[in-house]
Parts: sequence; C-alpha cells; structure tokens
Amino acid sequence: MENLYDVIIIGAGAAGCSAAIYATRYALKTLLLGGPMPGGLITEASEVENYPGFTKIKGLELASKFLEQAKELGSDYIQETVTTIKKEEKIFSVGTSSGHMFLSKALILSTGTYHRKLNIPGESEFEGRGVSYCATCDAPFFRGKTVAVVGGGNSAVEGAQDVSVHAKRVYLIYRKELKAAPLYIENLKKDGKITEVTQRNLVEIRGESFVKSILLDKEFSGSKELLVDGVFVQVGYIPANELAKILGCDLTSYGYVKVNAAMQTSVSGVFCAGDLNNASNQLHQQITSAAEGAISAQSVFRYLRGLDTLIEG
Amino acid sequence: MENLYDVIIIGAGAAGCSAAIYATRYALKTLLLGGPMPGGLITEASEVENYPGFTKIKGLELASKFLEQAKELGSDYIQETVTTIKKEEKIFSVGTSSGHMFLSKALILSTGTYHRKLNIPGESEFEGRGVSYCATCDAPFFRGKTVAVVGGGNSAVEGAQDVSVHAKRVYLIYRKELKAAPLYIENLKKDGKITEVTQRNLVEIRGESFVKSILLDKEFSGSKELLVDGVFVQVGYIPANELAKILGCDLTSYGYVKVNAAMQTSVSGVFCAGDLNNASNQLHQQITSAAEGAISAQSVFRYLRGLDTLIEG
Repeated sequence: MENLYDVIIIGAGAAGCSAAIYATRYALKTLLLGGPMPGGLITEASEVENYPGFTKIKGLELASKFLEQAKELGSDYIQETVTTIKKEEKIFSVGTSSGHMFLSKALILSTGTYHRKLNIPGESEFEGRGVSYCATCDAPFFRGKTVAVVGGGNSAVEGAQDVSVHAKRVYLIYRKELKAAPLYIENLKKDGKITEVTQRNLVEIRGESFVKSILLDKEFSGSKELLVDGVFVQVGYIPANELAKILGCDLTSYGYVKVNAAMQTSVSGVFCAGDLNNASNQLHQQITSAAEGAISAQSVFRYLRGLDTLIEG
Repeated sequence: MENLYDVIIIGAGAAGCSAAIYATRYALKTLLLGGPMPGGLITEASEVENYPGFTKIKGLELASKFLEQAKELGSDYIQETVTTIKKEEKIFSVGTSSGHMFLSKALILSTGTYHRKLNIPGESEFEGRGVSYCATCDAPFFRGKTVAVVGGGNSAVEGAQDVSVHAKRVYLIYRKELKAAPLYIENLKKDGKITEVTQRNLVEIRGESFVKSILLDKEFSGSKELLVDGVFVQVGYIPANELAKILGCDLTSYGYVKVNAAMQTSVSGVFCAGDLNNASNQLHQQITSAAEGAISAQSVFRYLRGLDTLIEG
C-alpha cells in the first residue's frame, strides 16, 4: 500500500503544521491535508503580536512559515478538502474532493473553527455585499463609510477598531457587557469614531444590491433602523467538527472534541489538536494550538508503538 | 505600595516570557524575574528546528526574542535570583539576591529544570575540567579528543553526535536501551566515530588537573577503565522546585509541580508554567512551555477578577 501513512493530519493551521513538524521529527510518514483555508483563521489577522518569537508578524506570513517548516522537515502536503473518512480495523481511509484516497494508521484532526453566524434575515443574502465575518480582511473596503460591528468579545472590540481606521463612523452593537481584554476596551473607549450600542440585538439586515441598513430589536437614538453601509459579524466561533462526528468522537456540549492530556479523543487512533478541541483551558491561540500539535504527534508516535499515550510526570 | 505588581513571573525562559507577553496584553502590571540563567536550558542548544515559526534558529537567539518581546510589550524585567518568597494574606513578597523586595497579587513559577547529575566520585571535582552537562555548549573544546557521553535519551543521543563532529572518538554509555526518537537513533547508527557501550554504569571519573579516565561497573573490551579526555553527563533533568516547596505547592512523585488545566497549583494565587510542572503530557519543549505561559497569564487575569480559572469548553 504505497499510500499508507503513519499519520494523516487534517487541517493545516498552527495545530496541524506543528503536528506535522513534530511527526516528521519522530520519523513518522506524515501527510498534512490543508482544506479550503490552509493556515486557518489566523490568515485573516493583519498583525499578530502575541505569538512568542515574533514581536509583530502578519497572520498570513506566520501561517506560511508554519507550513513551509512542516514541508521542509519532510511532511507530504496536499491542499484538498476531505469528503469521506472511515475507520476499518485499525486503518483509516480518507477521501478528498478530487477523488484521492489516502490510508493511515492514525489521525490528527485539526480543522479548527468557523465564524459563528447570526442567522437573521438578510445575513446570508448580503454576505460579501456588505456583510463580512472578518474585520481585518475587509475593513479597507469601507473607507469613509458607516459600519456596524456586532459582538462584545475580543474579536468584535478589536474589529471595531480595525474598521474605525478606515470608516467614518462605527456602531459597536452588543447585548450585555463587553467581554474583551481590558487593553482592548481601553483603546476602544479612546476611539472617537466608535459609538457603543448596548443592550440591543440585531434582527435584520436590509439593502438592495448592497447593505443599506440594519434593524435593532429596540430603538437607539429614536429609531430601530440604523443606516449603515456594512455589517461585521464578530460573534465568536463554532467548531468544525463534521469529521469528528463521522468518526464518533465524544464532543462537549458546545461541540468541541473532548481530549485528554495526550490530545487523544474517545476513538482509538484519533487525536485532535487546536481550536477544535477542549484543551488548553479553552485559550484558543496560535501558541496553544501549536503546542497541542506537538503533543498530539508525540501521542501518535507512542500509540503506533503500543505505548501508553498518557505520561506520568 | 509602588512595588505592588499584579503578577510576578519567576524564570525567564519560554514559559516565563510567554506568560509576560500575555500578561501585558491583559494589561496586568507585570514583573519578570530572570534568575541565574535567563532563557533557560534552551540557550544551550546550538540549533532549534522544531519551534514552529523558525525552520532553524540558535537557542540563544530564540530565548532573546522571547525576552525582547516581553519587554517591548511593557513587562518590567530584572535579572536577579530569588532568595526569599512568602505569602501573607493575599499578597506575595519576593526578595532577591541583591536585597530588593517586590510585592504581587499573583505568582507564576517558571523556573524550569536543572541537569540531573550522576552523583559519583570525581563528578563534581572535575566539573568544568572535563565534566560537562551540555554537549552543544562544550563539544568544540574536545576537538581531536576521546570523549564519553553518558545517557540513553534524546539529549544523550543528540549530544553524542554534537560531540563526534569535533572529537576523535565518542563512547556513548547507557544502562538499558536507547530511548531517543527514531530519527536521532538512525543518525547515531550512521555515525562512524561513535561506539555504543551498553549495559554499563559509570561508577567513577578519574583524573589529575583534568579528566583522564572513567571507571565502568563491568568490563568493556577487556577493561573497566576507559581512557577519555572528557565526560558529557546527559541523564535528564530535575525540576527546580525550591520556591514551589517553600510556598507549599503539591508536587508529583518526581518533584514536578502539580497543575490543573488552568496551570493553577494547589496554592491559591500561585500558577506554574513550563518544564517545572506536570502539564502538556510531560512533553517539555519550547512550544509547550510558551503555551503554558499564555494559559497561566489568562488564569492570573481571571483569578485577579474573582472568576473561575477553569473554563468549560
């Protein structure tokens, strides 16, 4: 079986690339499958300042470095989306969108998360025509415009500031309180272009060929309708757990893949690293994903040799 | 109290610096204390190839990048060794070798590990005169010489190869089997200068002004005594847990500080990141230490606000 790998890693963000880096160092025959978005969500970040080692680096550049390093150390890499996945006896078969079939003795799932949607009328209709899920990517398209940013977490608070650099005016709309880190909130309060619209829900996005307004559930400044040229939806993430579900991995109530300290799932031979799992105390960062990738590779190495994956300290 | 910090981080390796990077991002008033060896043991590594983001980087350079980033983001940094530590009410006081006293509301211990010693006659006597604990640092001093490397793990197997670049002949002495990663062992077997001496213990190091020979517990090639010019002791690490012990933190049977998923120790307000703790499934790497640093900073942030440090996923 020429296509039999020791490990197939699905998802080529920080977790997947780090897993590949470590797997090759363990001399495992390794295939890294990058799906529709190699590099993952970090590729949307204009500047990363908290990955130890780089004072400032573009998200896309960091993601490229990870991938290049994995390839340089000997990991195979193919950018294809996984469409079928199956376990028979102790061998996994992984089929891709272009009809390839790969076999492996172990799997590492590192497919990360998607942007969470609001699921309100007009949202999907105007996606790409005023509705965006990535402030850092699309902010420059709204130069001199009025824009709504929805959400109260880090990505919304930061996103509002990214947008205000370009926009004329920014409404930051959230339901309860801001849950962002203090430094972000401090900067927000100093930003003269941003108006906070609290205790409000977005209920509809309206427009013609492009977004023209949004509808709130309660009046703000005397009206439920706010005229805006764009809407940035920054309300969190949902785990990309489709393959984990097919394989039968146990999930948390939020849909994250349950792992132990060895990044081992409930299914023998299946490991999970990065934003998709419930490890690292839910701190979803490049640095934690990369660490989990390394740990999962060690676990695959031990699993393939019949050793306990959990190590006593 | 002008010296009251939100958090004092003790130890400025990957874990401590990453903790400082994240703590400053959380707008915490942060002091990073680098002890006798800022950067930690990685500074001994000539080349690091498995820290995601850098295909190849000198250990010292990586450590410097971590520290510079922490300082640039606003962390105070002082290179002084901690001599006293005390918790009164909810405030920690930390005294240093030069008589300074600092106060903080929380602590992150990241003092890492030391090189384990053999504790045999001649070892401490000839330290620095033929006996070394760091192959990468001291290998070049043994150009054209005959050298023993003691140990069967990664650091010994890699160390033997580092030494053989310079030395005329290398004995790799270990008790049972090699426990290093396959890639390292593969490279070892190809190295014509290295002779494996298995099933043997080192019992004494002999010399005059400098190491002259070693004594084994069983004969090898007809003699218990091997003539060597140097001995590299690479038999693992012991946790630098002195401060953790003073504070009363629970330890594992191996002496590592017990932490939960939030990097929280058994003592309220005390967190622990990096090689010193029992997290990351005992995979002691720069990448896992850095991730634990980030997680511990998040936990301090939540602890100071009275929130649960453990987050449900």
